[in-house]
Amino acid sequence: MKGRIFSGMRPTGSLHIGHLSVIQNWVKLQTEYESYFGIVDQHALTTGYEDHLDFKSLNREIALDWLSVGIDPDKAAVFIQSHVQEHAELHLLLSMITPLSWLERVPTYKDQMQQLGKDGGKDLSTYGFLGYPLLMAADILVYKADTVPVGEDQIPHVELCREIARRFNHIYGTVFPEPKALIGKVALLPGVDGRKMSKSYNNTISLTASTDEIKSKVQQMVTDPARLRKDDPGHPEVCVVYKFHQIYTPEVAQVEDSCRGGKIGCVACKRHLAENLDKLLNPFRERRAVWEEPGKVEKVLEQGAEQARRKTQETMKEVRQMMGLR
Amino acid sequence: MKGRIFSGMRPTGSLHIGHLSVIQNWVKLQTEYESYFGIVDQHALTTGYEDHLDFKSLNREIALDWLSVGIDPDKAAVFIQSHVQEHAELHLLLSMITPLSWLERVPTYKDQMQQLGKDGGKDLSTYGFLGYPLLMAADILVYKADTVPVGEDQIPHVELCREIARRFNHIYGTVFPEPKALIGKVALLPGVDGRKMSKSYNNTISLTASTDEIKSKVQQMVTDPARLRKDDPGHPEVCVVYKFHQIYTPEVAQVEDSCRGGKIGCVACKRHLAENLDKLLNPFRERRAVWEEPGKVEKVLEQGAEQARRKTQETMKEVRQMMGLR
Repeated sequence: MKGRIFSGMRPTGSLHIGHLSVIQNWVKLQTEYESYFGIVDQHALTTGYEDHLDFKSLNREIALDWLSVGIDPDKAAVFIQSHVQEHAELHLLLSMITPLSWLERVPTYKDQMQQLGKDGGKDLSTYGFLGYPLLMAADILVYKADTVPVGEDQIPHVELCREIARRFNHIYGTVFPEPKALIGKVALLPGVDGRKMSKSYNNTISLTASTDEIKSKVQQMVTDPARLRKDDPGHPEVCVVYKFHQIYTPEVAQVEDSCRGGKIGCVACKRHLAENLDKLLNPFRERRAVWEEPGKVEKVLEQGAEQARRKTQETMKEVRQMMGLR
Repeated sequence: MKGRIFSGMRPTGSLHIGHLSVIQNWVKLQTEYESYFGIVDQHALTTGYEDHLDFKSLNREIALDWLSVGIDPDKAAVFIQSHVQEHAELHLLLSMITPLSWLERVPTYKDQMQQLGKDGGKDLSTYGFLGYPLLMAADILVYKADTVPVGEDQIPHVELCREIARRFNHIYGTVFPEPKALIGKVALLPGVDGRKMSKSYNNTISLTASTDEIKSKVQQMVTDPARLRKDDPGHPEVCVVYKFHQIYTPEVAQVEDSCRGGKIGCVACKRHLAENLDKLLNPFRERRAVWEEPGKVEKVLEQGAEQARRKTQETMKEVRQMMGLR
């Protein structure tokens, strides 16, 4: 029997190349697991209720990103969290058994309070923000997922989810598996300016970048500042271009060699990278063009929600029974 | 246009005569307002998640109590909260905009923590218990109720509900009315032993009490301890029997007179009360016998839930739109 995964992303704007490894990992997993990929719009509200986000277009955008990278709606359910009411219902029911202290001590709670709250000017002193790791647990458990592909930073959330599952099973009888985190290999790409890649720094390469945009972005990449002339020996370890070559250029060893030996200039080296990135994005562009036809994404999301609901309704039937509600 | 009310009760056991004035108030209101009466099973979980309550029979029991007192499913929607998923969905969405501090300072929060928690051995240190006034707000607002029949003790909850409605309307645009509390005249009946009437003291008179049970309960009622002989003058103000006469005996002035004048003995006075209580409960018994027929209550609750869902789905459509989710 196949395992089952749930994973999700917040629809907060179109994705960039820094997100790619996560989605590519999903593309691999969708053939190995029964897969549920949720666009978690309700999560976006936990930190952005004042932002008046237009989820209609944001959801469409991120779905297009996923589909263009290769998420296949024939293999995986692709849906919007708020279209599946059982997420909210399980969140409420699990809230009854979840100690406040478990939520208060989630490491990201205090971190984000500081980063997004105090420093970022967001109001995070809400009941919903405190509850977001619980909502995440409900997202996972409502599918009875046994596996959760996540980044390292999400491990405490999966651990909390396991604790909540264990507590429910202990009080009411076994319904939930205790899902394990599957840490995907995440390619940590810097932004073109060498800082963390982030839309707020305007240093990203969008998944929808055109050939010209790629060229322009790669030209902006920071290289070895000690290398003044083309035949100075380079130090790839301090070069942003090289960090991208390491991930997207098969013949990276040769690139490194040429750089250290002063045999290739930064301009040519960047052209080489831009070509490779263009090749990388090309199949995404082709797939996107197909999915962009009117109504196609909407249909995927509709069918995905139906598929998701079939599963979550099964789970909730059991949950309600075990809690004595039906 | 009619106003709209929502009110609810937790299904924690069959009702007693102390609950009667609240339900009788609903019976009056159901003709004046578009009425939604919810059996709030999810609320019962906020303080009793460990109690393994059998809601299936508890829900049926309380519905029978309501119907027997005169709640009319042709006039009011009678339903079970957990059968209407929109309560949970609105609770989640409102959680995003609800400051933690608003919930922490609800007066009943700290009170119940002390009474049910520290003194009563219940675990109330959960996320769900902190959120119960928010769930109550969602219960009310999901019907866009403009009026909430409640007891005095619930005024802070209605006030919180108003604040949440105002905050939502301010952030996203006006969707909700700010509901006002309608304080019903509550008959404060003591238990037969003179303490507060409460199932845990075993001093209640059940709404389903038989003629013999009523007699036996009234016999247990504590009377004026200074009155040793039948013709001693009595002091009605310290007599439990008299407190009941005040509410259920039209000719109460005469009763008081006879007592003070030593013209009636406690035995006869109790017999008089027992007869009146029996008369009071008689129409309830008759209606209950009809509603008890197999399948009848279930049908009421099913149709009530459908009716409730029609209204809540309308509201949620608007809420999702205003929040940008659809």
